[in-house]
Amino acid sequence: MSETSPEFTHSPSKRPTISDVARAAGVSIAVVSYALNGRPGVSAATRDRVLRIADEHGWRPNAAARSLRTSAQAVGLALVRGDTATTHPAAFMALLGGIQDRLASRGLALVLQAVDDHETAAHLYRSWWAERRFDALLVTDVRVNDPRVEALRSARIPSLVVGHPGAARGLASVHVDEEEAYGRVGRFLAGQGHRRVGVVTGPADLDMSIRRTAALRAALEQEGAAAVVVTTGASQEEGASATRQLLVDADPVSAIMFDTDLSATTALDVARRLRREVPWDLSVVAGTDSASCRLATPSVTTLPSPVAELGEAAAQGLLDMLDGERGIERVVSVGPLTVRGTTAPWGR
Amino acid sequence: MSETSPEFTHSPSKRPTISDVARAAGVSIAVVSYALNGRPGVSAATRDRVLRIADEHGWRPNAAARSLRTSAQAVGLALVRGDTATTHPAAFMALLGGIQDRLASRGLALVLQAVDDHETAAHLYRSWWAERRFDALLVTDVRVNDPRVEALRSARIPSLVVGHPGAARGLASVHVDEEEAYGRVGRFLAGQGHRRVGVVTGPADLDMSIRRTAALRAALEQEGAAAVVVTTGASQEEGASATRQLLVDADPVSAIMFDTDLSATTALDVARRLRREVPWDLSVVAGTDSASCRLATPSVTTLPSPVAELGEAAAQGLLDMLDGERGIERVVSVGPLTVRGTTAPWGR
Repeated sequence: MSETSPEFTHSPSKRPTISDVARAAGVSIAVVSYALNGRPGVSAATRDRVLRIADEHGWRPNAAARSLRTSAQAVGLALVRGDTATTHPAAFMALLGGIQDRLASRGLALVLQAVDDHETAAHLYRSWWAERRFDALLVTDVRVNDPRVEALRSARIPSLVVGHPGAARGLASVHVDEEEAYGRVGRFLAGQGHRRVGVVTGPADLDMSIRRTAALRAALEQEGAAAVVVTTGASQEEGASATRQLLVDADPVSAIMFDTDLSATTALDVARRLRREVPWDLSVVAGTDSASCRLATPSVTTLPSPVAELGEAAAQGLLDMLDGERGIERVVSVGPLTVRGTTAPWGR
Repeated sequence: MSETSPEFTHSPSKRPTISDVARAAGVSIAVVSYALNGRPGVSAATRDRVLRIADEHGWRPNAAARSLRTSAQAVGLALVRGDTATTHPAAFMALLGGIQDRLASRGLALVLQAVDDHETAAHLYRSWWAERRFDALLVTDVRVNDPRVEALRSARIPSLVVGHPGAARGLASVHVDEEEAYGRVGRFLAGQGHRRVGVVTGPADLDMSIRRTAALRAALEQEGAAAVVVTTGASQEEGASATRQLLVDADPVSAIMFDTDLSATTALDVARRLRREVPWDLSVVAGTDSASCRLATPSVTTLPSPVAELGEAAAQGLLDMLDGERGIERVVSVGPLTVRGTTAPWGR
């Protein structure tokens, strides 16, 4: 693990000192100290430079100095506009609830800040850590080549990625095994006789979205069935449009897997208007469960949504990391498919 | 306004000094200073006591002292479990987006912390202010006799309530004029010939929920129609159950107004199962709009959801307050009812 866990492998003998930071910044040790403690008498420009250089050097106050400080007793998370927080807010809030529950059991607060994009989030993470405002930081909705992961790795910031270890690139990680779950959905649908299965998924650069779609496709192909993938944005309108496209195609699908509950319930309405009777003319599966799925007619076959469990596992991972555990890579299982009224055998 | 704006009416001549706080706490001025600046050398118990007494006295560092401090450049909001943030997360995220946009235009960050209940939020607000961690605080989902409002009032903390001035009790406030909008819905439905209108609303102690339901009832009664109010929790299951109850009653309703989009779309399914054809056998109106309302068959008649505008207006109110404006009480209009396919004349 040493190569992929940069935040833990810094050799004590090479540990940078406050003098190294002062020398690199071209200022006195007192100025570094003032800047790091946010005290007046240092210009904003100097302060920013010192904080940046301290972070680039991976410098932290030594244990003795740190023991004089109160721990922040808090974990930080930047909420990026357009991420799950805004596109699938119900799931995101369930995740937050799980994180909060477990952190609160140890007296740690969860603090969120809304930002516009991933680059800004990466910058904010560096500043937060420079100011020692949090004990650890969290990343959710990890993207391909995510700048937040890069910032946390390079500045050796204690942090945990809610996402696949492949995307966490050495940072601690906790994820839901959606690849395994989507693979099971593929085998289930193929086992029911479906030979052409639509997959409505997105956004295109969301790491987990890519992984689960690949797993579903692989499982279908292994059973001799085909996946027709439509990658959309996160809106219900796009999901509805993708559904129609899959159904009116010259070679239409007999089943569709949707990432989200709302896309799936909207699809029931699209099918009704196209005179396709679910489940006899079309099977529908949702990747997340909700009251909308349970109350729809017919009720929607879904994967369970272990988001609260994911939140608790992520928080537990953070706590264990703060207790000194290394190389954390944990997996939350999805559990068996909840088969309801939108799936039926095909072509028998 | 002076009587209802406690945070602004503190007479400069009576302004408490650091000596008053030290005397009341029974400690030296240096200890007060150390405690307020979070410096070591003061026990946690003493620090808590000093901060509490400083707040009870409404003490703040004077302008000269403050100018030495960096402004926090941030606004704080405690997210209470069970509030809109968790029950209607989509609307809440749109609100946050609006707030963030406007605050960011002045370089202020929006910082959230998840807490379990309103009492904890009130306590957190006091601590945040004692530590001067924010320039101002926000309250959303204001309740009847809300402990957060009481804490902010009594400690004279710069703050703004997203809610009705009657619930803000002298604090700055920005709210959506839902009373006026619900009154219009009542007149619209009565004008379409409905004489018995169901209202599915909740939770029971949410200030705005009480106000808008009263306005709808008053408008219906003025037109000679009756309101049958079912107060539920926030879940879709409860909304579905309330819908069925209203439809199978010996004296059933011919129209139902729902607070939320998801309750309304779920009601379409409940009506379908009871063989009531919407809109001919039942009219449905939702208090908030969404893709689910637009994509449903028939599409749902709704009030527009000016939550992003509300967020921007709330943030602008905060900025104006920080610029020194007093007695802020602003109203965001809902706009005209969006009439779609779920409403039709009755009994003609």
